[in-house]
Amino acid sequence: MMLRELLERQSLIVAGLMSGTSLDGIDVAIVRIDGCGFEASVKLLHFESFGYDAQLRERLKQLCSLDQSNVALLCGMNFAIAERFADAVFKTVAAAGMNMEDVDLISTHGQTVWHIPVADEADAFLPKSTLQIGDLSVLAKRTGRPVVGDFRTADMAVGGQGAPLAPYGDLILFRDAVKGRILQNIGGIGNCTAIPGGLSAADAGRLIAFDTGPGNMVIDQVVYELSGGKLTYDANGAWAATGQVHEELLRAMLAHPYFEQLPPKTTGRELFGKAYAAAWLAEAARHGLPPEDIVATATAFTAHSIAGSYRHYVFPHCGIAEVIVSGGGAHNQELMRMLRELLPEQTVSTSDDFGFSSDAKEAILFALLGNDWIHGVPNNLPSATGAERPTLMGKLAMP
Amino acid sequence: MMLRELLERQSLIVAGLMSGTSLDGIDVAIVRIDGCGFEASVKLLHFESFGYDAQLRERLKQLCSLDQSNVALLCGMNFAIAERFADAVFKTVAAAGMNMEDVDLISTHGQTVWHIPVADEADAFLPKSTLQIGDLSVLAKRTGRPVVGDFRTADMAVGGQGAPLAPYGDLILFRDAVKGRILQNIGGIGNCTAIPGGLSAADAGRLIAFDTGPGNMVIDQVVYELSGGKLTYDANGAWAATGQVHEELLRAMLAHPYFEQLPPKTTGRELFGKAYAAAWLAEAARHGLPPEDIVATATAFTAHSIAGSYRHYVFPHCGIAEVIVSGGGAHNQELMRMLRELLPEQTVSTSDDFGFSSDAKEAILFALLGNDWIHGVPNNLPSATGAERPTLMGKLAMP
Repeated sequence: MMLRELLERQSLIVAGLMSGTSLDGIDVAIVRIDGCGFEASVKLLHFESFGYDAQLRERLKQLCSLDQSNVALLCGMNFAIAERFADAVFKTVAAAGMNMEDVDLISTHGQTVWHIPVADEADAFLPKSTLQIGDLSVLAKRTGRPVVGDFRTADMAVGGQGAPLAPYGDLILFRDAVKGRILQNIGGIGNCTAIPGGLSAADAGRLIAFDTGPGNMVIDQVVYELSGGKLTYDANGAWAATGQVHEELLRAMLAHPYFEQLPPKTTGRELFGKAYAAAWLAEAARHGLPPEDIVATATAFTAHSIAGSYRHYVFPHCGIAEVIVSGGGAHNQELMRMLRELLPEQTVSTSDDFGFSSDAKEAILFALLGNDWIHGVPNNLPSATGAERPTLMGKLAMP
Repeated sequence: MMLRELLERQSLIVAGLMSGTSLDGIDVAIVRIDGCGFEASVKLLHFESFGYDAQLRERLKQLCSLDQSNVALLCGMNFAIAERFADAVFKTVAAAGMNMEDVDLISTHGQTVWHIPVADEADAFLPKSTLQIGDLSVLAKRTGRPVVGDFRTADMAVGGQGAPLAPYGDLILFRDAVKGRILQNIGGIGNCTAIPGGLSAADAGRLIAFDTGPGNMVIDQVVYELSGGKLTYDANGAWAATGQVHEELLRAMLAHPYFEQLPPKTTGRELFGKAYAAAWLAEAARHGLPPEDIVATATAFTAHSIAGSYRHYVFPHCGIAEVIVSGGGAHNQELMRMLRELLPEQTVSTSDDFGFSSDAKEAILFALLGNDWIHGVPNNLPSATGAERPTLMGKLAMP
């Protein structure tokens, strides 16, 4: 298909690819998209996940480290990863019972190997920047389809952080003409996108997106330590459900200065990682708490930090009728129960209830971003990334 | 300008950018191009060169080395170099008395930081690949103009070497309806593009392109050694002109196996670098040659290797009426005199005689490649790169 024809199409079949920073693999969502931008309507046709093999993950880890990376490995991996992306698309297309020719466009996030969120003041050659690999031309030539990708650099070039991008997908997939909704992702970290009811492109600035604090990170670490390394997470929240929340400890945890910080804000392992969990476990031990109470309190910490964030930073600005949870935390029944208890005026459901797994949601996002590129519609959200202006993110390679 | 409008235009003002592997800086050619592909007609409007400062060159050298490069520096430099590219375009546009809005398209080679011409059989993550930096989105956002660039990966993705690309520009700028022409570049290495008279797109496979052998590399090294490091090259060939060519030594030099190898073939410092020059200087010393004879013989070596290559690999396949020399070697009067003597049936001139300096010629090439991308016309030359098929090289970023 010639580019000119592609630009004329009002409905496209797009394969969206996502490869996360956890280096676990490639998610592919094949969707039909009608229209573009805020008016896009999306139908998920097929979704597949592909894990990276151990060898590839090992080399990616090398590439993502300061002391083991070098320019040759980056040169080679940029091609090698693109070949994996192509394989993943071929397999997904086959699993969907489609032909590659049915796919009008591939849109790929790429594999992030480095991100400099704030310029290094001491080194002019380390400006605010980001680096995703998986060459777009290799992917286009191998599949024979047009490819859009490498989105984040454009947002950074207009002053944004290049992240988070997820709120845009949340907005398109979940905005409602009447009801205000919060999309709450609970991965290692919790992050939310609050979408006022009836939001239009013109007032997209009213969208609120920020990291609520820890998601599963503290719970997982606590469970790992208390089980002597046998468990990596509290399946279904079953352990937490048998314990009692220790209110004094919970209050102490919620006094963390991160929760006082105004959005937009992001956090990660540097605040709520291993060191934090270890300090807090020591404190729990001082109180002589049994393991189940510790797990219950850690779970309550995540639930309260989420609900508290809404009370402070969302509800005063925007009425919310529904909270839709995605990510691993959506499977933690005890965490979900606590959230429902803390948010009595909202319906609390999961993205699966809307037909999208959280992995699929991310891959669909990239299909949307690529589709917008083809339509020439700005696809960043300055209210989420901090960019100076809406702009067109992405680059196009033709087959 | 919307992309759709851009695709409709039959005449474009394009700023072509080239940054060579010598890491010396950025060349910018602003051209008007009518049509595309083989039928493109080009008018050079303005040309400027910008040297990299010492600090930038130093960091680029780090980035181009296995032991000093890392992923963070690559991430940062990809942005930092794009900002330099943008500055260079702004300055060239101003020097041309134009406004940025007059430029329809920017087309950029990028800065090569690594190239793996042959896959490492022992490491699946070091496939045949190439890496150019200078992010296209950063350049597009900064200048407000559409940007095409990052060409070489596409040719490699269809089995090519991603190089040389220069023959394509030679073809468009210098092909003649009747006369066969050779474009001979004499940089460190000599390379030629032989264009049969009346060549059309359909029989582009008849084009012959290869490295003829040493260009200035051996002459420069010999001059450097003989002058005790005072001279880095033989200005205008003045030193060579005072000497006598030593025929026996010359014949020994021309017995190098590289000259027996069939094209396509490429060479570099690994064959004709310092070690080669040192060995040859020792041989000349054994013969007791005075310095001027040594320089004359080194100059004759380049001239004979070029003319000999034509006799063996070009003239039997294609009649040649003109040889057009570019690169630093075109300024070496003694070398040019020798070439004229060795090629009595051809006119030997320089690209400057045709209105294009050799630096401008390269920058114009990239303007042509970007222009072709917009027109959807394959812009690689399989006969030069070894690709399996003609394909569209490049990626597009919009402002």
